Amino acid sequence: MTNPTAAMIVIGDEILSGRTRDSNMNHLAKELTKVGIDLREARVVSDDRDAIIGAITELRDKVDHVFTSGGIGPTHDDITADCVAAAFGVSIDIREDAYALLAAHYERQGSEFNAARQRMARIPDGAVLIENPVSIAPGFAMDNVFVMAGVPAVFETMVASVLPTLTGGAPLLSQNLRVERGEGDIAGPLSELASEFSDLSIGSYPFQKNGIYGANIVIRGADGARVDAAMTRLCEMFPA
Amino acid sequence: MTNPTAAMIVIGDEILSGRTRDSNMNHLAKELTKVGIDLREARVVSDDRDAIIGAITELRDKVDHVFTSGGIGPTHDDITADCVAAAFGVSIDIREDAYALLAAHYERQGSEFNAARQRMARIPDGAVLIENPVSIAPGFAMDNVFVMAGVPAVFETMVASVLPTLTGGAPLLSQNLRVERGEGDIAGPLSELASEFSDLSIGSYPFQKNGIYGANIVIRGADGARVDAAMTRLCEMFPA
Repeated sequence: MTNPTAAMIVIGDEILSGRTRDSNMNHLAKELTKVGIDLREARVVSDDRDAIIGAITELRDKVDHVFTSGGIGPTHDDITADCVAAAFGVSIDIREDAYALLAAHYERQGSEFNAARQRMARIPDGAVLIENPVSIAPGFAMDNVFVMAGVPAVFETMVASVLPTLTGGAPLLSQNLRVERGEGDIAGPLSELASEFSDLSIGSYPFQKNGIYGANIVIRGADGARVDAAMTRLCEMFPA
Repeated sequence: MTNPTAAMIVIGDEILSGRTRDSNMNHLAKELTKVGIDLREARVVSDDRDAIIGAITELRDKVDHVFTSGGIGPTHDDITADCVAAAFGVSIDIREDAYALLAAHYERQGSEFNAARQRMARIPDGAVLIENPVSIAPGFAMDNVFVMAGVPAVFETMVASVLPTLTGGAPLLSQNLRVERGEGDIAGPLSELASEFSDLSIGSYPFQKNGIYGANIVIRGADGARVDAAMTRLCEMFPA
């Protein structure tokens, strides 16, 4: 039995120019790992219509679930919703329930519900809204594509409301051993371990800090007993 | 005249599981912006042969320069060099100059130059080495694909030695105005500004912190006078 798969699309020129450092990818990765959905790929694309449509079209066929962040605000560079509609070949217009949510919110706030803000009620035909308790403007799910905000606090709350609606897989268990030896000394024995436990994923992540160098060896798998067995063998190979 | 374009491929299961937060993408993005090379796309792919070969093959046709990070160490999960060779249809074997560098390094260190470490001298046929003053094991450039280490200190030094060899474009100039008003209030005037200065990139990046909310408006372009003119207009629209 294999786990469901996912991909992420981070949308925004500000990430590709280096001005902003994305944090949504790491957040989503950790949350998906907890529920046993395998994040297979993540892409950062610019605020460009062809780039966004291309990434959605390619990835939604390749994995079970696609998550996007960014580009659903009120300004001229927020074009994600239109791109999703184009990718699915459906129309997009202001939707009553989203409009009502926003109208009530801005009335409570005493802010003008102007044309720019009304744009945030434009939802592709057939989508399901994703709640946004932080700043109200909803995300939406279109088939297997989950369209969420770029602002981390909003993205995270949307992820929290979407994930319980998805069928997860076996959560990935992992154990970690820190070995203070050069990766070159670790590599031979580790390769044998990886061959013997080919049902597990065994990774080596080197570090070099304060004059100490070595690697963290991470053993991952869905079967706890197998992960334990591999870790026992690993500890025998590299006694502390 | 348009700037040269680039893409990045971050290779590693540890990023997609959320265990490690990538920092190389943001570093490369900032460095490329300084020299006027446009980073068009970034991808994170797993330690999987098909995924790595697929990303290299697609992106090297799409942009001028492709930068990869990760997967060139001595352990069994380091498969990037083999994937690059396969993507280019060239052979890969231990190369004398890389072997000599590593042999001398491990002799100085008093470490065994074993089979795992010798693997790091395997370089695709026809590639040019990229120097690694930090831990010696070289990266390499194969045509327009620059293959670099995942450890940030090593990645950064490799970027520093590669970028001066590339022809840059006009460095992107940017100016930023912090506006403490809701994006919905900013959006209308900003859209007019973006239409008038369609040769510039004008982005709006909302924030919400300590009860204050608003957006940073960033105006980017290669022509300093135009960026100045747009910023002057923007300041008139939103006086402090």
